[in-house]
Amino acid sequence: MSAKIYVVGLGPGDRKDMTLRCLDALEESEVIIGYSKYIELIKQYYGHKKLVTSPMKKEVDRCIETINTALSDGGKTVALISSGDSGIYGMAGVLLETADKMKFEGEIEIIPGVTSLCASASILGAPVVHDFAVISLSDLLTPLSIIEKRLRLAAEGDFVIGIYNPKSKKRTEYVDMAVDIILKHRSGKTPVGIVRNACREDETCTICTLDTLKEQHIDMFSTIIIGNSQSYESLGKIITPRGYKFD
Amino acid sequence: MSAKIYVVGLGPGDRKDMTLRCLDALEESEVIIGYSKYIELIKQYYGHKKLVTSPMKKEVDRCIETINTALSDGGKTVALISSGDSGIYGMAGVLLETADKMKFEGEIEIIPGVTSLCASASILGAPVVHDFAVISLSDLLTPLSIIEKRLRLAAEGDFVIGIYNPKSKKRTEYVDMAVDIILKHRSGKTPVGIVRNACREDETCTICTLDTLKEQHIDMFSTIIIGNSQSYESLGKIITPRGYKFD
Repeated sequence: MSAKIYVVGLGPGDRKDMTLRCLDALEESEVIIGYSKYIELIKQYYGHKKLVTSPMKKEVDRCIETINTALSDGGKTVALISSGDSGIYGMAGVLLETADKMKFEGEIEIIPGVTSLCASASILGAPVVHDFAVISLSDLLTPLSIIEKRLRLAAEGDFVIGIYNPKSKKRTEYVDMAVDIILKHRSGKTPVGIVRNACREDETCTICTLDTLKEQHIDMFSTIIIGNSQSYESLGKIITPRGYKFD
Repeated sequence: MSAKIYVVGLGPGDRKDMTLRCLDALEESEVIIGYSKYIELIKQYYGHKKLVTSPMKKEVDRCIETINTALSDGGKTVALISSGDSGIYGMAGVLLETADKMKFEGEIEIIPGVTSLCASASILGAPVVHDFAVISLSDLLTPLSIIEKRLRLAAEGDFVIGIYNPKSKKRTEYVDMAVDIILKHRSGKTPVGIVRNACREDETCTICTLDTLKEQHIDMFSTIIIGNSQSYESLGKIITPRGYKFD
């Protein structure tokens, strides 16, 4: 019996931003399971394997299916994929929780990837570089009051702020809320970057300011990076100085 | 004239955790420049290229050398390497700042990588998964008062906290300071992970609690991840629940 589960972070999406360990794990796996959009990203390379798509908001079911598949036929190697890094709002947590509850005794290997903050930052220039906070605006699993509190404290601490899941079809007003909270602690001139589909063919990138962020096109495929008090824009890039001295 | 600079995040260090884009850039580069420890990591694969090592605390000089090398002999392709992701406490910022000041007009491509938070988290289980803050304890470029303030606000906001550069040979007492600040807002039983040389051959991993963090062996190659109020330890892994419901 050798049941093995790889929890794989694909990175932003393009094959070139996947790590060798990610590619080796996909190659070794007999079955690859993931949300349909992520299966779509890798289908062209792994069409010869069993690919199982699973709907959004069914993350626990997806983990149960992953574990049951790994346990089937005397043991299989299965990859459970997320985009970005599997441990940042990804599947690593819920898979470990499910494995605990199901008393799964096979092997689990979590494979890190390039998270969207890093991918988006690389396109915007160097907006992070210093201390930062990452906050998801999705209130599916987190009370709104906690999201508001974290936005306030991150703004007060002058952290660079990365915002994941800024909008969904039903949830459109939280970016405006975030702007209002952050503006209490940070200048309206603070540079802000919005990257949609980072490092993919249809990538778009916009640089604006906190004052104009509400007017921008933002959707569920966007990541937002808000500079700290030292960040500036130069030649179409956002730079947050680390503090090096130039003569 | 075609001067090109790749600012490359190598990931945690092992070749298997590098992305294809990182490997392609290293292959294409005629010269690879970096802090000696990072050149050491890739030397075995790129010994046939010109490898230039540069000391720590000479980051601006390293960027000037990178730019001058790219501009030499009618234009060269040069890789400036960091470990982890080049945009998170990496070389992307200082390179762009230097390029601005030197009015460098060649091409610059920033290649993201797996940052230490993600690499360390994958070894510890799933300690991040929810909103998080990353703080460097190095006061070389940041006033201590700002570091203290950010620790306090991140603790108050119940962010998972990633700590980079927790100690150096000269700076040994800041982890204790961080523990004292965070304990004002978080239980002493909060699980904490310490990963040294994540994803390398000599990787070590320790799980303790906030109450026992001061007693642990920590050095400049360690990354610390402090759970939030919901994090727990199970079967030798740290799990921070995202909030999924199990029947």
